[in-house]
Order: sequence, then structure tokens, then C-alpha cells
Amino acid sequence: MVTTFAAAAGTLPATPALVIDLPTVERNLRRLADDVRRHHLSLRPHTKTHKSRRMARLQMVAGASGLTVAKVGEAEVMADECSDILVAYPAIDPARTQRLAQLAGRCIIRVAVDSVEGVTSLATAARQTGTTIGILVDLDVGFRRTGVQSPQAALELAQIVSKLEPALRLDGIFFYPGHVWSPAAEQHEELRRIDAVLAETIDLWKQLGLSTGIVSGGSTPSAYQSDLISSQTEIRPGTYIYNDMNTVRAGFCNLEDVAAAIVCTVVSTAVPGKAVIDAGTKTLTSDRNARVPESGYGCILEYPEASLTRLSEEHGEIDLSNSPNKTHVGERVTVIPNHICPCVNLQDRVWLQHANGDLESLNVDTRGMLS
Amino acid sequence: MVTTFAAAAGTLPATPALVIDLPTVERNLRRLADDVRRHHLSLRPHTKTHKSRRMARLQMVAGASGLTVAKVGEAEVMADECSDILVAYPAIDPARTQRLAQLAGRCIIRVAVDSVEGVTSLATAARQTGTTIGILVDLDVGFRRTGVQSPQAALELAQIVSKLEPALRLDGIFFYPGHVWSPAAEQHEELRRIDAVLAETIDLWKQLGLSTGIVSGGSTPSAYQSDLISSQTEIRPGTYIYNDMNTVRAGFCNLEDVAAAIVCTVVSTAVPGKAVIDAGTKTLTSDRNARVPESGYGCILEYPEASLTRLSEEHGEIDLSNSPNKTHVGERVTVIPNHICPCVNLQDRVWLQHANGDLESLNVDTRGMLS
Repeated sequence: MVTTFAAAAGTLPATPALVIDLPTVERNLRRLADDVRRHHLSLRPHTKTHKSRRMARLQMVAGASGLTVAKVGEAEVMADECSDILVAYPAIDPARTQRLAQLAGRCIIRVAVDSVEGVTSLATAARQTGTTIGILVDLDVGFRRTGVQSPQAALELAQIVSKLEPALRLDGIFFYPGHVWSPAAEQHEELRRIDAVLAETIDLWKQLGLSTGIVSGGSTPSAYQSDLISSQTEIRPGTYIYNDMNTVRAGFCNLEDVAAAIVCTVVSTAVPGKAVIDAGTKTLTSDRNARVPESGYGCILEYPEASLTRLSEEHGEIDLSNSPNKTHVGERVTVIPNHICPCVNLQDRVWLQHANGDLESLNVDTRGMLS
Repeated sequence: MVTTFAAAAGTLPATPALVIDLPTVERNLRRLADDVRRHHLSLRPHTKTHKSRRMARLQMVAGASGLTVAKVGEAEVMADECSDILVAYPAIDPARTQRLAQLAGRCIIRVAVDSVEGVTSLATAARQTGTTIGILVDLDVGFRRTGVQSPQAALELAQIVSKLEPALRLDGIFFYPGHVWSPAAEQHEELRRIDAVLAETIDLWKQLGLSTGIVSGGSTPSAYQSDLISSQTEIRPGTYIYNDMNTVRAGFCNLEDVAAAIVCTVVSTAVPGKAVIDAGTKTLTSDRNARVPESGYGCILEYPEASLTRLSEEHGEIDLSNSPNKTHVGERVTVIPNHICPCVNLQDRVWLQHANGDLESLNVDTRGMLS
């Protein structure tokens, strides 16, 4: 694993620098595409992880049927790469609905919604523009963030949507199992329970002749366990393209499957037992590891026994007391962050590393898009 | 306090939006400028908080003697506003030293350094460019992040610097009391201990005829307690211009002194007892409160009894179970973040609110600068 990024660490003009290893990206895309084919699912990757047109194109080539975004600004950019966009977010205030209605004139736009206010607002915008927005009814399956609270409530919102045709088009059901964060056997029961709730919802809709054409599930952890949710028709994983210490420590992949790393420079070793790198929260974010919060702010490939224990905005402090090897001022080291998505969002450009070691600048096209 | 941002919340075209209240900024600048004058100190504000030329200009007008930056890219931008820049960071790798040496041909550049490798690297770059870089010897006074470990070690590094003239110029001592995070009486003793360490260092240098012209201290918390460190000649506070829930909960200011807030829209109330706003870690960051970590990810002005308990990348979950008032989908609410500096760094532009309520777009000129 160290060797994957070692060449980049040696040749990069400046640090901190986020490096994406293209062969690992391609392997990660193939792995999930094969998995999805085996389970007869559609794949609609979430572009929030890479925020890059180029990566979106690679996902489309690898068999994605559409793309997922969180922000309307992301939808506007990704519409150049794909004609079928899902906004996996209640984008329901007028600032967002009007832009979405416009965009629905260019490509298929679907939005996940959980409120009457939300569908009404989208319908108004679509009516004014003369377009049609597809709606997925957001059903809470246990994460307790968004989503209507029962199959019956999903049916009621679906009925409201179906009455707002042709401004809206009822396209199906949306769920996000964000509370499933492990491949362990005890989570299988939870995934099967979610499947039963979905089946109940689909059944209720069918009884009233409503279409549940799309049943859209999410997250990288659940994507790798798709066989346990047979009611879903598509999945929306994001992180799988790059992976990070969250997916590694949760057991969904190995360090060798991580395609993104941040090359840093050691800028101080003055405090005994410590080294300071030039990456703090403005590069690595303050995100702790989802599975092992006490594991620090990332994995240092060259010093696996060391721990990234404290971050300031621009400093990362490495505790070397458990490391048999010591570093020195000026050395470049490679950090795998806990959560790659917000780290990518801090960069205007990242470095794409080709199989032959060549480095190419890659724009983060939708970085920092707010609405 | 709610009223300060209420007008902006009603008129902003889209959310999430970071609003800076100019009258509060001006009051905060005056307060510290008065304080600094009273203690006969120089003020060198850290621009990492606002990352804005315009705000830097306001600080210069309010009596700052120079500016502080962390990144060389920030120094290059701020050099247009001020001819005396301190890089409060061991910017010692070749990618940084060469740019700094160039910049030293345009204005006074000083760098805080704690290693022989660091001063050698800066001297090499300055020699190649034919310029002079000022050096402050970074002394660890207890935060244990960077800095040489004793007055004697500071003297030894100072002697090395003085031998590298004229490429380098020994300008004094740098320290960062980042572990002092309270105005409480028990911290006064620590500030006095720091002062004694500084006095010992100054004395050692004097004995060998070395100049400690500048003794540069840092942080907003210690800035408000400058009278306890009489050895320092200048301070480098950053947050004081905007303030945030860190400075409020630590007791350094009141909510009325907070000049920066993030206006958000409620996008879901489907889960009972909760509301979801359109600001997650990609807007508010994952920074917990430095003094009260369990207080959530910010203060919601309209719902002071509510708590921002969980963030995803684009969702903020508000627990309303303790709030007598409930919100509704579409309502705009105002969040004071825990730590304003990394939030500003996520925005290309913020909104500047004038005394008459007018909103003006303000560029975050050095946002996302990495090296």
C-alpha cells in the first residue's frame, strides 16, 4: 500500500496534496459494477465523494444508469455527463426548486422528498417552467434523519404526488440506511427488517395502482450487502470509488483498495515523541472514524504504529511514541483520511496518478457548491 | 442577537449563506485595538479567520501593525494589503521557502521556525533570491505542538540564525499559548508562568547580544488577557474579528459580539422531535465546541433551547425536544458555528451586512489555499 503512493510523494511539487490512484479507482468501480450486475440492480453513484466530471464519466462507462447529487449546483454540472440525475436531498425551497425545474427541461430530474410542503413547492416550480420533476418518496428506514415515518405515510404522500401530475411524476421510493455501518452478522437482521418495510410499502402502493418503479437505496456499506435488500432496484453508493479509513475500519475493504491519500510534509519534530505535518482540519477535516473514533484523524502509511492524535487548522500532530521508526523535518508522509468526501470538498484540484506513475491535475468541479 | 441577522435571513437569495455583520465587526476591531493600545502592544491579526483582503484592510485601518498568515499563498495575497507579514507556520519545505524568498523582495517577511533544517532551508532560498527573511524562534510554552523546548534551545537556534545573516535576520521570539482557553482565574497562573519563561529566554539572548525585538504571542483567548504576559510585544488573535460559539462559551464575549452566522433553511421535519437544516459538515465542519463539546454543532438563534446534535455532509439535525417552539419546513434559521475559521474556508463568497441592512457579496480571497 505504501508503494502505491510513494512515487507521487516523491514527485509532487507541493504539499498537502490529495492524490487519486487511477488503477485503484478502476478496480473499485469494476468490483461494485460486477456486484450490482450479479444482484440485477441499477447503480446510481453519489457524486458527492469525487465532485468530478471525469470520475462521473468513469462511473457511467463502468455501467452506472444515472448519477446522484446532493446539491442543485452539482446537478447542473453533472447534467453534462448524464441525462438522469437524482437529487438525494429535500431540495424544496424556492431557490432550489426553480433551478431544478429549469434543469428538468434538459434531462430527467428526480428529487427525494418527505413533506407536502416539499412536493407542493416542486410542483409549483415545474408548473411555472412547463417541465416535469420526478419524485421519490423518502421513507425513514431507521436512520432517523429525513423520511416519512411509515409505509402508510409514504402511501399518503405518494397519493398527493400523483395528484400533482403532470408537474410531478411519481417515480418510486427513496431510503437511506445510514445506520448500517458494518458487515457483521448482527446487522443482517436490520437489513432484512428494512427489506420487509420496503416490501410492505410497495404492496400498499400497488393496491392503489401507484407505481414504485424505482426503489432507491443508499450508502457504500449497504451497497456491499445488496443481496439482503431484495426490494430495492438501485443503489447510490458514494465512497466506494475512493474508500477511506471509515470503509477500511468497518471491514468493507482493505488498505490496498483505498484510491485517495493526502501527501504531507513533516514541518516540525521539536516536541519529543511527536511530529507535525502540514495538514490540519482545513485539509483532513475534524471527522473522527465512524467505527473507531479513538483511532485518530487518519492512517499514516509510512508509520502504521503512529497515530494522528490532534489537529489544528493547518497542523496535524503525530504521536510517534508507539512507532519504532522516527521521522525527520522535511520528510513526506502519506495520510489516508477517515472520511474522504469532505476532504475532496476542500480542494480545488487533486492529482490523478496513472498506472505509469504520471501525475495529472484533476479539477474538483463541484467543490464547495452550497445550494 | 436574533434581530442582527433576521433581516438578512429574510432577504438572502439562497441558503446556506454565511453572513458577516459589519457593525459588529467594527465594534470587535475597536474593542481589541483599544485593549492593545492600553497595554502598549502591537497588533498583528491572523487573517486565517476571515481570509479576506477587505477585512485585512479594516484591521490595518483599526491600527494593526502587520498581518499574520499560515500559508504562503495567504502571504502572497495579503502582501497587497500590508508590507509586514508574519508566517506563523514552519513554512520550511522548498515549495514554500522559494516563494517566501521571492515575496521578501516585495515586503517584510518573517517566519516562525523551530528547527535547524527550517532555518537552513529558508536561508538557502533567501540566498538564491538575494533577499532577507526575518526569523522568529518558535518557543513551546506548553501547547506542545511546535516550538523548541526550552529557553536554552531557543538561544541555540537564535545563534544559528544570527550566523546565517544576511539571508536571515533574527527578529525575535514566537510563541502560541493554544492551551489557554479560559478567562478563569486558574489560567492566570499559567499565563504568568509563560511570561516567566519568555523573560528567561529574552534574558539569555540579551547576555549574548542577540536581539529579541519582537516577542509575538497568539490566540484570541490570550489576547484578551494580554496584561498577564508583559514580556510580549505583539499579539496575533484571529477569531476576535468575528467570534463564534468557542469564544462565547469560553466567556470571552457575548452572543451580541458574534459577527458571523450561517443562515439555513429547514428542509425536513418528518422525524418527530427533529428538524433538518441544509447545513452539514460541508458548511459547519465537524468541529465540536472547545469548551463544551457536548453542546452540539452550533447555536440556533431562533430556537435557543434546541440543539444541533448530528451532522451529515449536507444535513444538520436539530433536536427540538427541549424547545417550546417548533419550526416548519421552509423556515430560515440562523446558526452560530462553534469555530468560524474553517467554516469561512468552505465558502467562495460570504455576505457582508451593512448597518442599513444592505447585503454585499464579499470574496473569501484566500479560501482553500493549501501551501
